[in-house]
Amino acid sequence: MDAWVFDAYGTLYDVHSVVRRCEALWPGKGASLSQAWRSKQLEYTWLRSLMGRYAPFSQVTRDALQWSLASLGIPGEGHAVEDLMAEYLRLETFPEVRQALGSLQGRKAILSNGSPDMLDPLVAHSGLKLDAVLSVDAVKAYKPDPVVYELAMKYFDMKSKSAVTFVSSNGWDAQGAKSFGLRVIWVNRAGAPVDRLGFAPDRIVRDLRELG
Amino acid sequence: MDAWVFDAYGTLYDVHSVVRRCEALWPGKGASLSQAWRSKQLEYTWLRSLMGRYAPFSQVTRDALQWSLASLGIPGEGHAVEDLMAEYLRLETFPEVRQALGSLQGRKAILSNGSPDMLDPLVAHSGLKLDAVLSVDAVKAYKPDPVVYELAMKYFDMKSKSAVTFVSSNGWDAQGAKSFGLRVIWVNRAGAPVDRLGFAPDRIVRDLRELG
Repeated sequence: MDAWVFDAYGTLYDVHSVVRRCEALWPGKGASLSQAWRSKQLEYTWLRSLMGRYAPFSQVTRDALQWSLASLGIPGEGHAVEDLMAEYLRLETFPEVRQALGSLQGRKAILSNGSPDMLDPLVAHSGLKLDAVLSVDAVKAYKPDPVVYELAMKYFDMKSKSAVTFVSSNGWDAQGAKSFGLRVIWVNRAGAPVDRLGFAPDRIVRDLRELG
Repeated sequence: MDAWVFDAYGTLYDVHSVVRRCEALWPGKGASLSQAWRSKQLEYTWLRSLMGRYAPFSQVTRDALQWSLASLGIPGEGHAVEDLMAEYLRLETFPEVRQALGSLQGRKAILSNGSPDMLDPLVAHSGLKLDAVLSVDAVKAYKPDPVVYELAMKYFDMKSKSAVTFVSSNGWDAQGAKSFGLRVIWVNRAGAPVDRLGFAPDRIVRDLRELG
């Protein structure tokens, strides 16, 4: 049986609606706010992991939003913050995702930085059929710490790392999984250059239609 | 004897000349290139540390530059890359640094992500008088991994972490040092909000004139 592991945000789920909501709340500032928010969100996951100060992704995401609002001089009213956080619970899947996953043979799981309080409602809302939703919260560390990718190995109970295919749209996540030893497909939706961290994905695709 | 530990890039040394050189090489693109370069440089230090794939800062810095050039569609001619890398060896200190350090009592060291091949020529060129130049290269991990701040404790041979004052302009570095337990002064040159990583610097100053 093939084993497929998918990153969630940006890979299966499109965060564009968050950008749109930012723009609706603060016209003219949506793009810069959502860009700052996303960078800070990732930055905080890496920094907390390195500091040994794990906090759940829901907290990290809220902290990153509040920092980004402050850095842009936008008053961070509570209701707007809660509005945006709620947006994460009902992200849409990219258009090709449902069909692409449906036509793949084998077992399928999500492996995400998201904490269960964010991931579980999201997956339920989208109705995607998966064998498991694995959260880094189980190991209190963030990607690309190898203990995270080890979660997938344990879940699938596989002997060989390269028998598990990991699919992510995040270049650095693809490198982390490759460094750990999984088979890796990088979904390069944005047409970005390959990250220079010493590894190469096994395959690069533009979207999930090319997976099968 | 007081023990003072300083971050190098952005704290003692002004990287603005690198921005200027980027602009001279690719007019109109200097700001976006140097911004992408700096973010990617930090990102690669965090990712490599988490992946357990340390590479020296000189390599990380060159890799980040080449990724950033590619992402902006700028052909990365070898001579331009070497020009920019060389710029890092002759950065100027911020205007107040020499006098501020001269008037401080106690022992003083640099603790930097920089590898010795970058730091040693830089410090020699600037003529700053310090007791030690400590590089993360000794522990093959990057800030804010606690093993890095431990380097300062070992060098000064201090019993109490809070007897060592760490000075950094990087908000996340200040948080990392605080999480480790040092006394921390954040040099908030850019007027940024405090990072939301669970800690607060002991003091926030605008530049090093306020240290004494």
